[in-house]
Amino acid sequence: MIGKRNNKNSFSLETIKRLSLYLRNLKRLREQGVDVISSRKLTTFLNVTPDQFRKDLSFFGGFGKRGVGYNVEKLTEEIENILGVNKKWGIAIVGVGKLGTALLGFEGFSKFNIKITSAFDVNKDKVGKEKKGVRIDHLKDMKDIVKRNNIKIAIISTPPEVAQEVSDGLVSSGIKGILNFAPVVLKVPQAVSVSNVDMASELESLIFFTKRRQGNSG
Amino acid sequence: MIGKRNNKNSFSLETIKRLSLYLRNLKRLREQGVDVISSRKLTTFLNVTPDQFRKDLSFFGGFGKRGVGYNVEKLTEEIENILGVNKKWGIAIVGVGKLGTALLGFEGFSKFNIKITSAFDVNKDKVGKEKKGVRIDHLKDMKDIVKRNNIKIAIISTPPEVAQEVSDGLVSSGIKGILNFAPVVLKVPQAVSVSNVDMASELESLIFFTKRRQGNSG
Repeated sequence: MIGKRNNKNSFSLETIKRLSLYLRNLKRLREQGVDVISSRKLTTFLNVTPDQFRKDLSFFGGFGKRGVGYNVEKLTEEIENILGVNKKWGIAIVGVGKLGTALLGFEGFSKFNIKITSAFDVNKDKVGKEKKGVRIDHLKDMKDIVKRNNIKIAIISTPPEVAQEVSDGLVSSGIKGILNFAPVVLKVPQAVSVSNVDMASELESLIFFTKRRQGNSG
Repeated sequence: MIGKRNNKNSFSLETIKRLSLYLRNLKRLREQGVDVISSRKLTTFLNVTPDQFRKDLSFFGGFGKRGVGYNVEKLTEEIENILGVNKKWGIAIVGVGKLGTALLGFEGFSKFNIKITSAFDVNKDKVGKEKKGVRIDHLKDMKDIVKRNNIKIAIISTPPEVAQEVSDGLVSSGIKGILNFAPVVLKVPQAVSVSNVDMASELESLIFFTKRRQGNSG
């Protein structure tokens, strides 16, 4: 999980996640041909208050005018700028098993200007070959290749036993953001962000609390 | 997000997520033919301390003996019991678009004893037909069907504009846990848990913080 930021700007991770939410909905509005939108309209169905919305934006400068509404196209670009998704990011993936292969083929990454440009594995049947247009290199070459290509974001989709070692190697090669699919708690320096994508534990937590509530109410 | 629990047991959501982590790794060990494991061995590569592990288990009774190690088979069953994944859960899915269809075909649910038994949409080309062996009913029949089948967990994979309305309908039909894929902040009563699965905002947060760190260091 990415820690909360407490610097002079005092925006939190939640601010950034809401910006991402606004962005996705602005893009939908743009596709629907909407040119201008009020903060009230944009925020109502998101269950965010207009005040929260304006506050989130205010950390990064003022956009739009009260009463006039927001230009959808311009606000989309501004939030893309803030988030950094206006430039292309080449990222690495480590572990090209079932999940890794699915991620290599995931077309949704392009929406975020993300492209997987390097892939690593230890399986000699995979190394040296291409999958979904990406060459798979051996894990032992990971550090060199990540450094040489100035890659800053990586996906870990390895077995859990090796995830921490892979993470250490990535961090020492300059990786600053890790999207972790391995079921372990990664330890990284403060200057590195880890996001855990873990539907399994989300589901099992839901089941646990649902079961408890049934027990309490029945 | 599921709120932290502060009852007399004083375990948190984090405890439950770690139990899910232990469970997955115990299952892996079982597949590898491991019969007994020490807490140290089990926790080392997960980056959890043995103390934390024992504390997490202690909320639900004592398992295993210090020095003797844990019986993998037995501990697996115990944690499955705690989490409630030892019994089958029939769940509903609302919104059978691209994502919803992918989820209908997701084989991983069976690992958690989860089976999607009901699906709902408003598209008349879909309603009345089957997809991946599940009949798609019209959204207007959702409340009746969810109640009648005593379904307690639902997935929302609708467009954002209707997600809150769908959520309200589900809650009024007795749903206690929602896995939400729609990019909105759902409002639910305290007795209902919502888990948001949102790779987009995870990714955009990572990009944001990575960009900042590059800016700071360069």
